[in-house]
Formats: sequence, C-alpha cells, structure tokens
Amino acid sequence: MLGSTHGTFTNDLRARVVACGEPPLTAVHGTITAPGDRDVSGRPLHAPVPDLDRFFRPRSVAVVGASDAEGRPGTGITRQLIAWAERVGARVHPVHPTRTTVFGLGCSPSVGALAATLAEPVDLAVLLVADPLPVVEELAETKVRFAVAFASGFAETGQDGAEAQERLAAAVRRSGIRLLGPNTNLNAFERFREDLDGPAIALITQSGHQGRPVHTLQELGVRLSHWAPTGNEADLETADFLSYFSQLPEVGAIACYVEGLKDGRAFLLAADRAARRGVPVVAVKVGRTETGARTAASHTGKLTGADQVVDAAMRQFGVIRVDGLDELQDTATLLARARKPVADGVVVYSISGGTGAHFADLATAAGLTLPTLSEGKQAELHQWIPPYLHVANPVDNGGHPVGDRRGRKIIDAILADSSVGVLICPITGPFPPMSDRLAQDLVDAAEATDKLVCVVWGSPVGTEAAYRETLLGSSRVATFRTFSNCIGAVKAYLDHHRFTTAYRSPFDEAPRTPSPSFRKARALMRPGRQLSEHAAKQLLRAYGIRVPREQLVTSAAAAVRAAGLVGYPVVMKASGTRLAHKSELGLVKIGLTSASQVRDAYRELTDIARYEGVDLDGVLVCQMVGRGVEMVVGVTRDPLFGPTVTVGLGGVLVEVLNDTAVRVPPFGEPQARDMLGELRGRALLDGVRGAPPADVDALVEVVLRVQRMALELDGDLAELDINPLMVLPRGQGAVALDALAVCR
Amino acid sequence: MLGSTHGTFTNDLRARVVACGEPPLTAVHGTITAPGDRDVSGRPLHAPVPDLDRFFRPRSVAVVGASDAEGRPGTGITRQLIAWAERVGARVHPVHPTRTTVFGLGCSPSVGALAATLAEPVDLAVLLVADPLPVVEELAETKVRFAVAFASGFAETGQDGAEAQERLAAAVRRSGIRLLGPNTNLNAFERFREDLDGPAIALITQSGHQGRPVHTLQELGVRLSHWAPTGNEADLETADFLSYFSQLPEVGAIACYVEGLKDGRAFLLAADRAARRGVPVVAVKVGRTETGARTAASHTGKLTGADQVVDAAMRQFGVIRVDGLDELQDTATLLARARKPVADGVVVYSISGGTGAHFADLATAAGLTLPTLSEGKQAELHQWIPPYLHVANPVDNGGHPVGDRRGRKIIDAILADSSVGVLICPITGPFPPMSDRLAQDLVDAAEATDKLVCVVWGSPVGTEAAYRETLLGSSRVATFRTFSNCIGAVKAYLDHHRFTTAYRSPFDEAPRTPSPSFRKARALMRPGRQLSEHAAKQLLRAYGIRVPREQLVTSAAAAVRAAGLVGYPVVMKASGTRLAHKSELGLVKIGLTSASQVRDAYRELTDIARYEGVDLDGVLVCQMVGRGVEMVVGVTRDPLFGPTVTVGLGGVLVEVLNDTAVRVPPFGEPQARDMLGELRGRALLDGVRGAPPADVDALVEVVLRVQRMALELDGDLAELDINPLMVLPRGQGAVALDALAVCR
Repeated sequence: MLGSTHGTFTNDLRARVVACGEPPLTAVHGTITAPGDRDVSGRPLHAPVPDLDRFFRPRSVAVVGASDAEGRPGTGITRQLIAWAERVGARVHPVHPTRTTVFGLGCSPSVGALAATLAEPVDLAVLLVADPLPVVEELAETKVRFAVAFASGFAETGQDGAEAQERLAAAVRRSGIRLLGPNTNLNAFERFREDLDGPAIALITQSGHQGRPVHTLQELGVRLSHWAPTGNEADLETADFLSYFSQLPEVGAIACYVEGLKDGRAFLLAADRAARRGVPVVAVKVGRTETGARTAASHTGKLTGADQVVDAAMRQFGVIRVDGLDELQDTATLLARARKPVADGVVVYSISGGTGAHFADLATAAGLTLPTLSEGKQAELHQWIPPYLHVANPVDNGGHPVGDRRGRKIIDAILADSSVGVLICPITGPFPPMSDRLAQDLVDAAEATDKLVCVVWGSPVGTEAAYRETLLGSSRVATFRTFSNCIGAVKAYLDHHRFTTAYRSPFDEAPRTPSPSFRKARALMRPGRQLSEHAAKQLLRAYGIRVPREQLVTSAAAAVRAAGLVGYPVVMKASGTRLAHKSELGLVKIGLTSASQVRDAYRELTDIARYEGVDLDGVLVCQMVGRGVEMVVGVTRDPLFGPTVTVGLGGVLVEVLNDTAVRVPPFGEPQARDMLGELRGRALLDGVRGAPPADVDALVEVVLRVQRMALELDGDLAELDINPLMVLPRGQGAVALDALAVCR
Repeated sequence: MLGSTHGTFTNDLRARVVACGEPPLTAVHGTITAPGDRDVSGRPLHAPVPDLDRFFRPRSVAVVGASDAEGRPGTGITRQLIAWAERVGARVHPVHPTRTTVFGLGCSPSVGALAATLAEPVDLAVLLVADPLPVVEELAETKVRFAVAFASGFAETGQDGAEAQERLAAAVRRSGIRLLGPNTNLNAFERFREDLDGPAIALITQSGHQGRPVHTLQELGVRLSHWAPTGNEADLETADFLSYFSQLPEVGAIACYVEGLKDGRAFLLAADRAARRGVPVVAVKVGRTETGARTAASHTGKLTGADQVVDAAMRQFGVIRVDGLDELQDTATLLARARKPVADGVVVYSISGGTGAHFADLATAAGLTLPTLSEGKQAELHQWIPPYLHVANPVDNGGHPVGDRRGRKIIDAILADSSVGVLICPITGPFPPMSDRLAQDLVDAAEATDKLVCVVWGSPVGTEAAYRETLLGSSRVATFRTFSNCIGAVKAYLDHHRFTTAYRSPFDEAPRTPSPSFRKARALMRPGRQLSEHAAKQLLRAYGIRVPREQLVTSAAAAVRAAGLVGYPVVMKASGTRLAHKSELGLVKIGLTSASQVRDAYRELTDIARYEGVDLDGVLVCQMVGRGVEMVVGVTRDPLFGPTVTVGLGGVLVEVLNDTAVRVPPFGEPQARDMLGELRGRALLDGVRGAPPADVDALVEVVLRVQRMALELDGDLAELDINPLMVLPRGQGAVALDALAVCR
C-alpha cells in the first residue's frame, strides 16, 4: 500500500512514473497503452487507500528537534505533543543532537540512534527542524512509517522554495515513509471530544486557521473524528485523506477547505470512492477569482485551477461546494447526522404567517419542493390549529400551543405525512414562554423519527437556553442560525442522496484500450501544428462525427468537378493551416447553385487570400447543410485535470455570454446530457418560435465521441474546437461545419 | 397634513381622488392634466410626510376593549400597555362598555364619553375590539389623532375580509384619524433601550415576528429608535413610516420587512425622500417566487407585485434589497453606524494566509475592490511583519503581535493609506491569547478613525469575551459572524454612498404637461383594440422614434409606386390589426430589388393571407434598413406601479434568455443607460466579432421617448412592444422595424 507510486500522479504522467522507478509503459504509436488499472490516456482508474490508522493514532512518536528551552519555537509544540500523548496513551521520544532530556524525557541524538535503541517501532516522527530533508533521508533507514514536517519556506515562497519542496518530495518517495507537510501544524493532534457519539465529521484543511471553526463545533456538541491539515502536500494530499476518511465507519461526512489541488485525477478518484460509499464531501474551494487564486498560491504554493473546471469536476463526483466556512459547518453537520431521506418534500412549520411566507419564498427560489398538504392532512392539522390559519404548507399555527400536547401532535402529524421528508421550523424571534416549549417539542419529535427536523434559531443573541441547551443538546435536530444556511444545507442533503442513489462510477466504464478510430486519427496529427480545416474534419470523421461531404481543390475547374460530386448547392471556403475568422475576411461563400457561381467564387476567394496575404492549401467545396441549432463542442487542456470537454451555444452567443458547460473525463452519457441542462440557452435545443426540436441525442453522441478522442489522443491533441456543430432537427443528426485542431 | 388624500394613491387614481372628495382633475382629450404636484400621467410628484410624533410618543392613550379579566385576549395587551405607559410617562384610559375599572384605572363606557369628560386630548386609541369599524366612526367625532387596530380577519382572509377592510379604510378616510392596522400588534410600544447613543435603526415590518430579531439586536448594543408593525395597512402604510423616519435626526438607517406594497408610487416617493436625505433603506421583500407571493397574500392580503419590477424600482431609488433577516440586521446596523467612506478600497488584514486568500476570493467575486498597497506602504508594514509574508493586500501578518504595540501600528498604518476606505479583519477561529488582543487593537483603532473597521468573528460558539464584550462593546466596529454577510454589507455601504452622492431625484425632472407629440399620438388610439403595425409605427413617429419609410398599399400597382417612392431595395409585409408572427407565416418578403419582384411579392403575400384566413388592411412597402443590433423596447403595465419600460436583446434571445432590464417611470437618462449595463448580452452593443459598436445614444433616446409616451398615454396605452428596434452602428441611429401597440 505504501509502494512507490503513492497513489498520486502528476500531470506529466510519464515523467512521474519513471521518476517513481516503475517500468515504463508500453508505447503503441508513440502513446501509452493502459494496463488493467489505467484508462486509454494512461491515467489511473484506481488509487490505493493509504492506511493512516497509525498516523492518527500513533503509539510511539519521535519529536525531532524537541525542546524545553523557554522562548524556542519548538518548545510549545513539544509541550502540546506531550500533553496530547498523555491523553491518548502514546509515548513521546524526544530527539535532539545536543540535549540529553526534554521535559524530563530521555533524548536521543538522532532518529537513527533512537530507532536502533528503541524496542518498539516508532509510528510517527514529528519534524520541528528548519530543514526536514536530512531527517527524511535518515528516516529512510528506519522503520518509521509517518512524518510531519512543520517547516515553512517551501513552494509557498516561490520558485526556490518549490525546488526545495521537490527535493524533499523526492527524498520522501525514496524513503517509503508518508509525510504530512511541510508548512503544516499540530491540528491532527488536537483534542477531540470522546463523549459525543453518532456519525462524526472528518476535516481536511490546507490552512490550520481555516479549520478552526469546524473544530470548535465540538463545543456545540458536533462530533469531530479527525483533522488533517495538509499544508503544502509534498507527499500526503487532500485526496489521500479523502479516501482514507471515506472508509471509516465513524465518519458521517467529510469537510474540506481546499486552496489548490495537487493532482486532479487523485482528487477525482478519492471523490469517486466517497461517492460509491455514499459519504458526503463538503468543500470550500478557493479560486473563484484571479485575486483568490493568486493569494492562495502564495499561501500553500498550489494552483487553484480553472474555476469552471474545478467546479464541474466537483459536481460530477458529488462533492458539495460551498462558499463560506459557516456553510461548510452547517452543511457538513447536517449531512453527517441526517438519515437517508424518504421523500423530497419540505414542510415549513411556522409560528408566524410572515415567517412562513418569507421562508417558503427563499426555499422555493433555491429549488426546494414544498408540497401542498392533502385535504385530509389539513383537516387533521385543523384539529389543533384555528380554521382561519393556512396549513397547506407552510403550516401557520399562529403561535405554537404550549398549555397541552397539541403542539407535539401538530409536529408529529406533519412528519407522518408520506410526502414529507423534511420539516423545517424557523423560529425568527425568541419568546421564551412559547419558543422554549416549541424547541422541546421539536427535539422530542426529532428523536422519535427518522425524518429530518431542522430549526432556524433566528435570534442574533444566541445565548438563549432553548437554543444552547434544548436544540444544540440534540444531535437529531439540525439547528441553524440563518434561513439561507438552512435552505442550502437541506438542498445539499436532498441533492446528495439523489446523486448517490443514481451514482455509477465513470471509472468503471472508462475506455482502457484505443478504439479502431485511433490509428486513423493519429496518422493525421502534426506535432506542434494547427491542422487545416480539412484535416481537422478528417479527424472528426475518424471518430464517427459527421462532417459535410467536401473536397479540397486547387483550381477553379477542380472546384466545379467537386461541386458536381458534392451536389449543389455548395459552400466554398478558403482552406489553410492558420486560418481563423474566415467569415469576417469574406473567405466563405454560401449557397452556390451553378458551375459559373463556383468558378467565380473560386477566383474571388483566392483573390481575397492573396490580397490579405493568407497562405491557402486550397479551397474547400462543401455540401450545404440544412438549418439547425449551432453549437460548439471542444477539448481544452486543464493544468490540473488534463483534457476537458466543453459544449456551448454557438455563434455570437458563446462569445458574448460564454454559455458553456464543461466536464472532466471520464464521464458517461447522463453527464453529457446534464451538460446541456446547464446551458442558459438550453431552450433553443427544444425548439423556440416554432422551430423543430433539435437532435439532442446526436449532440450527446458527438460529445461522447469527442471525449473518446480527447482521451485516446491525449498525448497528441492540444486543443479541438468544433464551431459550429449544426444540430439538425430530431432524427437528422448533427454535422460539424467547421473545426479547428491544434496538435501538441 | 392629515388631509383627505392621506398621501397615498391607488392605481386607479381618478376613482380614488373622487372618493377622497377632491375636485375632479381637468380632463384634456379625455385624459388628465397634471397640476403642479402631479406628473403628466396624473401621479403625484410629492407626498406629505405624516407627523407621527404623537403616534410613537403619545401622552395619553385610550384602550378600547381594555380588560383585566383573566383569560381574556385583551388582558395581556392591556397589562403591557399600562407597563409601557408607566415607563414612558404616558397616561392610559381604559374604555369598556360595562367595566368601571380596569387594573384599578377608571374606565369609560365609550371613546366618545372619554373624550367628552377628559381634560387632555387623547393622542392614540388602541382598539382591542373584534370589529374596529364602529369605534373608528365614533373616533371621527373626537379629537383623537391616531388609532391602532389589532383585529385580524380582514384582507388576509380573502374577498369578504378585503371588503370589510375597504369599509374600514373608507371610515378612516372620513374620520381624519390615522390608523395602524388592522391585523397588527403592540410592537410599536415595545421597550427601547435608552442607554445607547449614536445613529439608530428604525424598523418597519408587515409581520411582528419577522421584526423580532432586529429588535433583539438591542441586546447586542445596537440602538433601535422605532418599530412600525404595519399589518394590513388599511391606512398607514410602509411608505408613511419610511417618509417619517427618514427625516428624524436620530435615525441612521431604516430596516424593512415587506410582503407587499399597498401603493407603488407612494413607496417610490418615500424612498426618494430617503435617497435625497442620504438615509439608507434596507429591505427584505418577499415575492421572489410564486409560492412566496401566494403565501404573503394570505398573510397580510397584499399583492407582492412582479418581482423583477419591484426589484428594479428598489434599485432605482437606492433601496438595498436583501434576502435574509440576518443580512437585514447586519446591513442595517453597518449602514446606520458607519460614516461616509473616503475611498472605495478594501484591505483585508488576516492572521492566516488561508483566511486572507479565502476572504479576498469571495470579496473580489462580490465586486469589492482590493487595491494593491503601494511599495512604500508594504515596506512600512514589513517593519512589523516578517519579510516572507505577503502584505500587498490581503495583509497576512502570520499571527497578530500581542507582546507590544506592533499590532496596533499595523492596523493604523493600513488605515492611514489613502486608497483604503474599509479595513476588514476576519478572525476565523478564536485563540484567546492572540484574538483577545487583536479584537482590542481593532476596537481601539476603530474608535480613533472615521474609516470603517469590520471584523468577522467566525467562531460558531459566539460566547467568547473578545466577541461579546470587546467587539460588540464598540459601536465603531462592525462585527459580523460570516464572511458573506460582511462582504454583502460592505458592498451595500460603498454602493449606497456612491448612489446617494450621484442621486438626482427623477421626480424633479418628471414631465408635468403633455408634449406636442401627445395630441398626434392620442388621435391614433383605438380604445380596447390592437393597432395595426402601420398605426403603431405612426405612434412611434409621433414621439420622434425613427421608423422605416413605408407606405400601406392595397394593390400591386400601388405597391410598385410605393417602392419607387420608398426607394429600392424594399421589404414587404402583410399588415393587419391581429397579425403576429408574420415571419413564421411567410408574410414578410425582404430584399426586393425590382418592380416585378414587388408585384410578385404583393400577390404572394395576399395569397398566403387568404390561405391562412388572415384579414389584411393592406401590404406595407418599407425601406430596407441596414444591419445592426436587434433590441426590443416595450411598455408593460404593472399592477403596483403602472406603466413600466423594458429594454432587452431582440430576436430569439429575448425569448430564450429573457435578457431584459426594466425601469419604473420616472427615470432619467443615467438610469436608461444603466438598463443596458444590466443586460447579459450587453457586449453585443459594443460590437463583437469585428462588428461596429452600436448607436447606444440613439437606443437610450428611444427608451426615454418610450417612457414619455408611456406616461402621456397612460390612460390609453395598455401595452407597447417595439420588436425589433434595429440599433445601427454608432452615429447612425436606431429604427423601429416592427411595433405592436394595444390600447386600453
């Protein structure tokens, strides 16, 4: 499990694989074939789960650079570690070249000396030294399995630091140990409350301070099982902890604070593992803006990645992305604790008609479903609620009854309704004579049901007993402080269960061997160059994507012959390897219906090209294709994830509105179909103003074929852009009218 | 001031004005001319500010239906009122037909009897009776100035209730008193802390419960001056309180919870008053969704209005709309307290690089400006911050210094920078040894500067002393619990001051008398009917909006003559009063270049019309207009605000993306220009793919002319739709190629 690949891969796979000492992969036609656990692009389809039990629960810890001298930076950490070890029953072994004891514990001069003299194996070495590299090299000679490096000054400081970090990473790979850090801290060895039970949150953060509020949730009764502060991730990265946590029975949800991903594929494989197991992952991911990306890079030295791509990748694998740490806390807490929903319906129970209206408005706007309760259910509720109040949903009780059992009966009756999966009670303002009893009734009802009961405690004060003691005292009630966080978390909860229920891992279906198209396509590649339109279309044709009948000609006479073969009317276009914006230059002629028009067009196109100083390899004579919806489909390389597939509305729309959706391979047909649903102009495909519905199936098929091409030609294709892809009316297919391909 | 118009107007102005007993307005051509204080549509340009001093601070209060009998609903309220009166030094006079004393106070049998026997005037009558109507009629005979009606069962219950409410409202109008309610409560007479100073929040809510959290803010040290729970607004409405509060010196901001507006124009005039005085208004407005609108209607019986229109109206007059009550609290508190910004720059000061990156990312995404600090300023900060930390902004200090004065020096140095208007310090996790001192340094710095200092206290616990005592103890620090609320409030603060600085009231410039166009236009109106395209274009022409040269003809020969006059090439279109979707039916022929083509086209168009069974009034022969950007400009009637003006991207875009912006008249040129900025496809107007920039000035001019038309023809025009308006390249104008007009 702790073999030489470490379960992580850089983007330059071949370089990294060789660096790891693995046998080189078999090259076919200059690219890489996949062994059983790799897809056709050479990327892994499985990642091992690192065994981190002894990292988080070491029995024996060496503290290298331990100190008890007042004012030394290592002294506080040493003291904390000793206190922590006492709590959890671990043994601490100080290591220092000159000290004989530290805080009364016998001190070894080096880790080598310690390992040689110690009867028990050392599970973890905590490196408090400024330069962890020599210690890591020394550790390679021992049986120590894990190390934590606190030192900063690596990739977060720039190029020199990045190189130092690479040297450290290489030493770690050679050593066989697993390293956390550098540029990390002691958060993994914080105090975790043991008196709380039920499903816990496991926390992964690339910044200690940013994880603090989630850790602090324990003071509000929320159980936390682990905290991995990953720092610069020279070795162990977010993905490793994600995989590890997702298979622990005590973990109900994983909360992450991510600034950048070290390896896109490793993250996807880890998220896939969590998705297969139905473990919710909630993440703050910095990098929505250029400013955020730049600042994050100067913090942990990682690239944030193109945000649209990261966002899509997270959605594909069910990672719930949130913006604020408050949302991270609220969403992770709810998802860790709540049981599987039995229905999607949300009922709002309010003690004020205004609160019900307001909450219902925001909840509906966010996409929650508020079913109208049946006449029978409403009649039942009116046993306890005056007839002039509305109880269809929101249920307005005008003030929760406190003098008898009616209040609890109302809540139970709502929860008993089969359309209801979630009951939400927003208590906007505290009014102890009523809200105390209401809180208690809600807790009692929640403890007696598998359905989700949520409360919004809207008072800005937050020291009220009903909130602190009654509501926070129960792990069965999800308590929020704002409408929006409650709505966001409930939406995430319902979406998560819908997602995992339908989830099929795309890695199981990812292509492992090249298709027959590959050989034909590869022969067209011209390394480092842009293909001509004609060659790019041949590439598409190789992958079964329709292009117009067309011929490349170099004389007017040949153009006329070609037009006869292609069939009138024809389109004629100048063709060359560096030709973009042909329409703007007047280098496209459409609707030519006769030999004389074709001859004239040939002359005009070549004249314009000469005038504009454009090199042509000829003129394309193409079949005219009927009217449809113009789309774009393309492949772009992402620094984090490799090739990505984009689909968007064509023509001026893609430029003005950037109305596109992106996916990271591998993805299956349902995801390809979902991409279209993300387009704001989606309705164009359904037919507007009397236009017929477009052939969406054919469009989806093109997207999937482009994905296949992107994977198989990963080493060869830098960029592909089909623009426009004319999607014809339903049943008539889709035709690539123009294409641009750039080779690597 | 308490005259017969009450400062409020229904949409059916004429009916209301007559009902109020005012002399009918002079009719010219069947519509209404405006006296000095009305615009050309007859809507008021000024609203009186009601004098509500004695409502909020009555010296003498009659409690009609007072009770001290255990278990009676009025008993609790009577007790609360007596306690309140004791606190504020008011006298309570119980009124009850059969009781002689209530809580030991002498009881009068009726308000009439009370008024007759009492030496002092009664300022306020609190009506605890089930049917307030007879009491209101009785009050008309007294000198009582204000009443509050608690009873429910009015417009919120449906049609019968709405009629009862209208009878009550009519009685109130006759009586000369001002009434709060019905369906309201005692919130106006709650306890307000007197020990707080500085600018206060005044609160207006249409639901008592929904205002509770803002009231509770007093426990956190935020000053509240008033609370108006408007209920069903049979008389006094949100707008009245808005006007009144905006002129009180102690009010720093007005916070509103609005479900529906009683009168759109009254609200705009009140918001205009606040905008002129620079008083920020922050509002939650229910009605984003159908569900919210429906639920709100069943709560206070008010229409929520078309949300896009309400949203635009609020923005036009600077009302800051927020979604959550937490945002309402945070934004109103900041705006009430913060002084005018001296710069737009925001600096983030953080004790963790991760926090800085995260906050900067979200702040930038929300549109805040984070200036890079100058080299000099950075060097200054590096006196106290280690050189390896980034201080360009965010300023990462790696941990606030606590042992000396360095921490305060850092904060002061940032605040002293001229590019900085706002300093924000997100304290994600509490760490008392550091965060206690940091909080104190921030408070000390904030007390010594006019610039805005914000802190985010990110701990979910919220009982820490640094938060409760240090931060909340100072009204000069704006303290938040979440990044998003801090960012939203700071954005609102900077936007508000930018808005008020540039604000010019559109009411000052609204047209008061009909333009010369009006007489021509009105002659074209056909009550209740849709105009033909030709007539609609004449209407546009009357208002100086360009239309193509065109002639309506009824024979092929006339068509040829018309084409000669119009000039080739021409467009020919079938013309009729009920003709939509002409293009789809093949009833438009473009690019006709000869007499024979015109003759053929005439025959074809009339043939198709005959085949389709369409009645024609002839065929339009129109000038061909050059290519440009197709837009739509239209007038729609809103139930709350009357005519509204919409501009959007034309063609398929308006149908698929509904990419439109709307404004409520009156608005000036800057607002018309802002409308274009709201369009997602705005870039099309700037020219994309080598297209020339469009004539935006001409487009703005058309929007303003359409507004003028909408106001002048308010009584006559139900709907207008110019689609497309071809906006030609800059300097060439804009031409209405087609138009649809429906008369009222």
